[in-house]
Amino acid sequence: MWKSGVTLARALRPRSAPRLGSKASSRASKPAAACHLLWSSETQFSQAGQPKDYALPNASWSQGMLNLYNEFVEKSKDGTWKRIPSYRHSLDHIPDSVKLEGEKVQKDTRLFLRNLDEEGLGFEYVMFLNPSEKRMVTVYQPGPYLEGHPGFTHGGSTAAMIDSTIGSCAIFVAGRVMTANLSIDFKNPIPLGSVVLVDSKVDRMEGRKVFLSCQVWSTDGQTLHAEATALFIQLASLTRR
Amino acid sequence: MWKSGVTLARALRPRSAPRLGSKASSRASKPAAACHLLWSSETQFSQAGQPKDYALPNASWSQGMLNLYNEFVEKSKDGTWKRIPSYRHSLDHIPDSVKLEGEKVQKDTRLFLRNLDEEGLGFEYVMFLNPSEKRMVTVYQPGPYLEGHPGFTHGGSTAAMIDSTIGSCAIFVAGRVMTANLSIDFKNPIPLGSVVLVDSKVDRMEGRKVFLSCQVWSTDGQTLHAEATALFIQLASLTRR
Repeated sequence: MWKSGVTLARALRPRSAPRLGSKASSRASKPAAACHLLWSSETQFSQAGQPKDYALPNASWSQGMLNLYNEFVEKSKDGTWKRIPSYRHSLDHIPDSVKLEGEKVQKDTRLFLRNLDEEGLGFEYVMFLNPSEKRMVTVYQPGPYLEGHPGFTHGGSTAAMIDSTIGSCAIFVAGRVMTANLSIDFKNPIPLGSVVLVDSKVDRMEGRKVFLSCQVWSTDGQTLHAEATALFIQLASLTRR
Repeated sequence: MWKSGVTLARALRPRSAPRLGSKASSRASKPAAACHLLWSSETQFSQAGQPKDYALPNASWSQGMLNLYNEFVEKSKDGTWKRIPSYRHSLDHIPDSVKLEGEKVQKDTRLFLRNLDEEGLGFEYVMFLNPSEKRMVTVYQPGPYLEGHPGFTHGGSTAAMIDSTIGSCAIFVAGRVMTANLSIDFKNPIPLGSVVLVDSKVDRMEGRKVFLSCQVWSTDGQTLHAEATALFIQLASLTRR
């Protein structure tokens, strides 16, 4: 478990970033906004144009993937669910108004789950949030570059997709958080190229602790591929008030 | 937890592979050899030349990475430790003599941790085995394409590196295995481009259950980045006898 929010906040400060300035102070004064906007579609960008949103259909998506995507888009029309955009750089998810002074997108880094150039080879996924249920579902199609045992996804790639889903769920409910513990039971291997549902929700909160659970199901609901529990800790300086 | 070894063995059969033939029968009769050779440098290949071994120094390795590599190479001279080669395709780790009939490397798939073309962007690592201690250590340099929080490695990539190290350790001690549970405590984030030691060992075995633990340390031994426990299950038809 993380020792303290202060330690965390220090550790998370980019190594090359200058000391906190006026923008950082304004950030500290409105953490809820920062947390709410993080990963949200309201993000505004000062650079020319929006960065590419990877959580949209592309030619590599199977019909099964498209069907599930369309199903959740339909469910989103009344506001019950909401599609979460996804970018290649971590900082693209953070609005300019709450970036630290000197923070800017490092073009030589990439978000781990969006690091392959060609569509369909790696993590193809789109997340949908259900705010009232404190629930995040990812429609996920693992590509051929995520192999572990021949023909199946690597356990580490499944862990990464679970961590990302469950972490995004925690962010929306509790603000900026860090993973403290992630425990996964692997039940049935996931064939490369199949489509699965990663279904996570916040079970309870105790102080700065956020407890979540997650299950990975086949799309027909017949096969439980994995289930997980996780503990996230709200960063002390950025907790929702 | 996996339901049964039989179910597992079926699930792990490549979808396109034919029914088990004579080669499969001979494989079943010598599981220990199969397990021992898996991931080992004694692997023989019928194709022209060896596949490229990625567990060797390249231009992206930092001096710190090279120093640790050289330290373990030195320790390997008396046989206490042994470097484990690493290839791009899962099946390249399995000798021809124990492959299933019809099994051949699928060039359109890649091992998850070796799926990026350019050196230094993703997982740069080399594993060393200490057989008498039932221990596997990975010298690991996470690249800029493994980003989670800006400037730091994604928790999912750390989980993947732990799963791979601890799984390889289990394979050498217990034969072909599958992950049943992986539980990780994240202690301190890992800066992109740093070098860490992933240190795993088999704690005990109970029947087909293999219990392991793992710690991720900074190279100066001052910072514990993560620690984990794992349960692996030996595949019933391939357990070491």
